Amino acid sequence: MIELNKRPVGVFDSGIGGLTVVKSIVEQLPFEDIIYFGDIARLPYGTKSVATIRKFAYQTVKFLLEQNVKAIVIACNTISAVAKQDIQELAGDVPVLDVISAGSAASSNTSKNNKVGVIATPATVNSLAYPKMINNLNNQLYVSQIACTLFVPFIEEGYILHPALEIIASEYLQPLVTAKIDTLVLGCTHYPLILPTLEKIMGDDVTIIDPAIATSVELLNILKQNKAINDQLHPPKYKFYVTELSKNFNKIGELFLNKKLDLPELVNLDCY
Amino acid sequence: MIELNKRPVGVFDSGIGGLTVVKSIVEQLPFEDIIYFGDIARLPYGTKSVATIRKFAYQTVKFLLEQNVKAIVIACNTISAVAKQDIQELAGDVPVLDVISAGSAASSNTSKNNKVGVIATPATVNSLAYPKMINNLNNQLYVSQIACTLFVPFIEEGYILHPALEIIASEYLQPLVTAKIDTLVLGCTHYPLILPTLEKIMGDDVTIIDPAIATSVELLNILKQNKAINDQLHPPKYKFYVTELSKNFNKIGELFLNKKLDLPELVNLDCY
Repeated sequence: MIELNKRPVGVFDSGIGGLTVVKSIVEQLPFEDIIYFGDIARLPYGTKSVATIRKFAYQTVKFLLEQNVKAIVIACNTISAVAKQDIQELAGDVPVLDVISAGSAASSNTSKNNKVGVIATPATVNSLAYPKMINNLNNQLYVSQIACTLFVPFIEEGYILHPALEIIASEYLQPLVTAKIDTLVLGCTHYPLILPTLEKIMGDDVTIIDPAIATSVELLNILKQNKAINDQLHPPKYKFYVTELSKNFNKIGELFLNKKLDLPELVNLDCY
Repeated sequence: MIELNKRPVGVFDSGIGGLTVVKSIVEQLPFEDIIYFGDIARLPYGTKSVATIRKFAYQTVKFLLEQNVKAIVIACNTISAVAKQDIQELAGDVPVLDVISAGSAASSNTSKNNKVGVIATPATVNSLAYPKMINNLNNQLYVSQIACTLFVPFIEEGYILHPALEIIASEYLQPLVTAKIDTLVLGCTHYPLILPTLEKIMGDDVTIIDPAIATSVELLNILKQNKAINDQLHPPKYKFYVTELSKNFNKIGELFLNKKLDLPELVNLDCY
């Protein structure tokens, strides 16, 4: 059995969006080995049903546990919203972190006017996970949510600064501008990539929260508590598993992590 | 064993787009029982790899063959483009029809200036299925293709008449306008739903071809040849199978078919 601290951290998402979380983890924990799983063959999850998302997440987590991970990070808001509890039950003693818990904690003490906005996929919005969790932490906050269904396809098409995106984003965000929120939570791991467009529409007075940062800080604290920080002196290993080989994966991964990455390995999750 | 003519026709797609083909089939063959399969849990296919699409299509066709279908209609251009041959091999004696073969035949004798445009998903465009098949039928034609990645998400969001769609569509179609094509093939079963926007951009001199119509005429001919036309006197049965229960399915299905539909039945394709 490998010692706890030498075991890798498991991070997973429906696709490549979760790499924004990997980037934050690498900044906070530069000596950890990381296993990343992206279910690219079956993405996106955000427009799918709770039953489908739970089934897919369950298969991925079974795979990650077989890789002997010492912690699991749900680097996808949609999965965090609908499957966190099932995943924690399956994982047993292995700690499970998720972007919504961390993002809610980060946003609950930021607002000065008690008006918080959340933008996310339809599945995340429908779950009410953010309003419930934020209000558990601070019941003075009024949380408004908007499902921004087209943001993920725009970002995956590479249209991250585009007049059509600006029209769509202005429509989606208008109710939050009207509500005069002063804090906006990016409730989807893709959204940091369109930050300039979001900032332009929301204006300077709105603080934008990226839950990836809070998640990686929480991971650091949990590994410290469990005496599970990796003290290796050689460079960490990053291993990527996917359900489909995509040309974009390495391009985007290398952009995010600022280093050359090995090709991902193909995994068949059927029958898991 | 059920008599050949009493057996249902199997129609399948990655999601709900194939219902435009079902609509054409119902118009041509009003007494046929139809089994429709939509792999909603794993859609969209059009941005995925050839290996993934083939695997998914194979699982669906195995399921349809178990339902004793007398013909299989691939109501999805992406699947037609990359998996037609595999599907015909798996289906054996059961005839397999696809929207690309039928659409190519319909478009090969329409153009007067020999300039044809095809709009489709990235997977369909990359396969070169349309240009190859159209040029096999008429090697005088010059075929230009454009991948219109964002059309499917816009249509599934219900943004079928929207200023942002018009900006995106104008950009996508600009090379076809410049090339002065006189025939445009809708190489994705979703695209008939944005016909007004496409017509506005392309102008009155361009003939727009919807392969669904040609496909249903071909089905009629094949069933006639095989003496497999259903002569039942009672109303036909339409049975829908999906890999995820979606609220949209019945709403859109009833809009297309102009009748109340039974709820679809959930099928697990894993391990198929």
